[in-house]
Amino acid sequence: MADPAAPLFPRIAIIGLGLIGSSLARCFKEQAGLAGEVVAGDRSEAVCARVLELGLAARAETDPARAVAGADLVILAVPIGAYAGLAEAIGPHLKPGAIVTDVGSVKQAAVRDVAPHLPEGVHFVPGHPIAGTEHSGPDAGFASLFKGRWCILTPPPGTDAGAVEAVSELWRRVGSMVEVMEPGHHDRVLAITSHLPHLIAYTIVGTATDLEEHLKAEVIRFSASGFRDFTRIAASDPVMWRDIFLNNREAVLEIIQRFTEDLTALQRAIRWGEADTLEDLFTRTRAIRRGIIDAKQA
Amino acid sequence: MADPAAPLFPRIAIIGLGLIGSSLARCFKEQAGLAGEVVAGDRSEAVCARVLELGLAARAETDPARAVAGADLVILAVPIGAYAGLAEAIGPHLKPGAIVTDVGSVKQAAVRDVAPHLPEGVHFVPGHPIAGTEHSGPDAGFASLFKGRWCILTPPPGTDAGAVEAVSELWRRVGSMVEVMEPGHHDRVLAITSHLPHLIAYTIVGTATDLEEHLKAEVIRFSASGFRDFTRIAASDPVMWRDIFLNNREAVLEIIQRFTEDLTALQRAIRWGEADTLEDLFTRTRAIRRGIIDAKQA
Repeated sequence: MADPAAPLFPRIAIIGLGLIGSSLARCFKEQAGLAGEVVAGDRSEAVCARVLELGLAARAETDPARAVAGADLVILAVPIGAYAGLAEAIGPHLKPGAIVTDVGSVKQAAVRDVAPHLPEGVHFVPGHPIAGTEHSGPDAGFASLFKGRWCILTPPPGTDAGAVEAVSELWRRVGSMVEVMEPGHHDRVLAITSHLPHLIAYTIVGTATDLEEHLKAEVIRFSASGFRDFTRIAASDPVMWRDIFLNNREAVLEIIQRFTEDLTALQRAIRWGEADTLEDLFTRTRAIRRGIIDAKQA
Repeated sequence: MADPAAPLFPRIAIIGLGLIGSSLARCFKEQAGLAGEVVAGDRSEAVCARVLELGLAARAETDPARAVAGADLVILAVPIGAYAGLAEAIGPHLKPGAIVTDVGSVKQAAVRDVAPHLPEGVHFVPGHPIAGTEHSGPDAGFASLFKGRWCILTPPPGTDAGAVEAVSELWRRVGSMVEVMEPGHHDRVLAITSHLPHLIAYTIVGTATDLEEHLKAEVIRFSASGFRDFTRIAASDPVMWRDIFLNNREAVLEIIQRFTEDLTALQRAIRWGEADTLEDLFTRTRAIRRGIIDAKQA
């Protein structure tokens, strides 16, 4: 039986101290039972310095290989496009029996890019906390980010059950509810709930930035009428989102297609003055909102 | 010179006690200097009863002609589709010299549907407070709704300057900043900042409601990843929004067209893996958000 006073992981390395990475570091700082020691890895010297200033880690390394050495748990919290190179760099330096997890928004790509570089005996438990804000960087994080939110784990078949349970327990302790899912299914669900909404928000804000100057000023001024909600979403990290779209291409293209068909139908209803079509749809969408409020995710 | 103790309007009639109408009634209740007496008009008996229970008006009438009799200011706060019938019904009962205003989201249609029914000597000052929530009805209102928000007035050429000033002063006293604009220009600006965002939100939530049942449950569960912001917008009043789209048809169809072109370009960038195109756009959209924060409309 485990020593109840011992931390869940003697040493945790977090690679990438952005919003998610630094929020986790804050959780580990607040709750002594999670990590005996936290080591930060970030390729930016400025971020490393800031992390130490904030007291978020015992050590901060720009070389990820040095950051992961001796870690029992390694958390990858960088944009998905950086996974393959990072996994290749740290692979040879991982401690035997270590667990590697991540927090990225596309899980098939995570398995594709990370798994091949991990040595035998290292466990890979891909994960995705459904939490975030439009802010980035080590100052943007906060310890309550994961409270009441879902975290989806997508362990490949045959993954060590103890490793999955240890990662699950970590997420539960920071306040999340854990769900295990097949990576492809995760990617299809998130294409709808997250990737399409972000793409649409980026598009509509982009459409507005292309307006004539005097109209643009007024769009900003009168944004409280709906537009500003989109600008919040469209202020999310550009590199992170670029990588999400490029790495969940099929599922995103498929859902854009459905969306475009539906928009075209609505456009037609407006053109031809089909009042009932509009009112029916707008009434149905209210019910979905009620579902979200009932599920306490509002 | 006006008596400084006298209210701005001895009697105000509000027709339609939904979110906006009941929020104004609450403002008038809180600040004695705005209305000597408030009369509510709503075709629903249940709403009239509720308005009296909440103490939002001295009197509540289901017949709008009775509600507006003797009123110095009449505020139309019903869906735009109801304007023509309502204006026709109240026209003969308006007090000479009365001011009629409204709070609708399309201003050319307001002028088209209301002005022809008003007798000589009654002043029409169309208005649009840029404020709201996704909730409806007399219980949804609150007095601080208009604080720090814009209110756009679109008086037709030749409107009495005193009437415009009196309506402006009312909005300033409830906390708003007032802007005067040409109705057609208003409708084009709002098509971008408000009507398109709502249409897109309704569409994307509609796309999700058409999914297979098991996927739909997961969309609700994992909505915190972007989708739920759209569901909030798509929970707005169905009849009000139906009428907005039908009455601002040209401007809405024009902006849908621009949006669709931009979405198609982005779709192509994803399909062909054009990383720079994506990152460039996502970086530009962040700047718009900063503009909104600087303009204190975030």
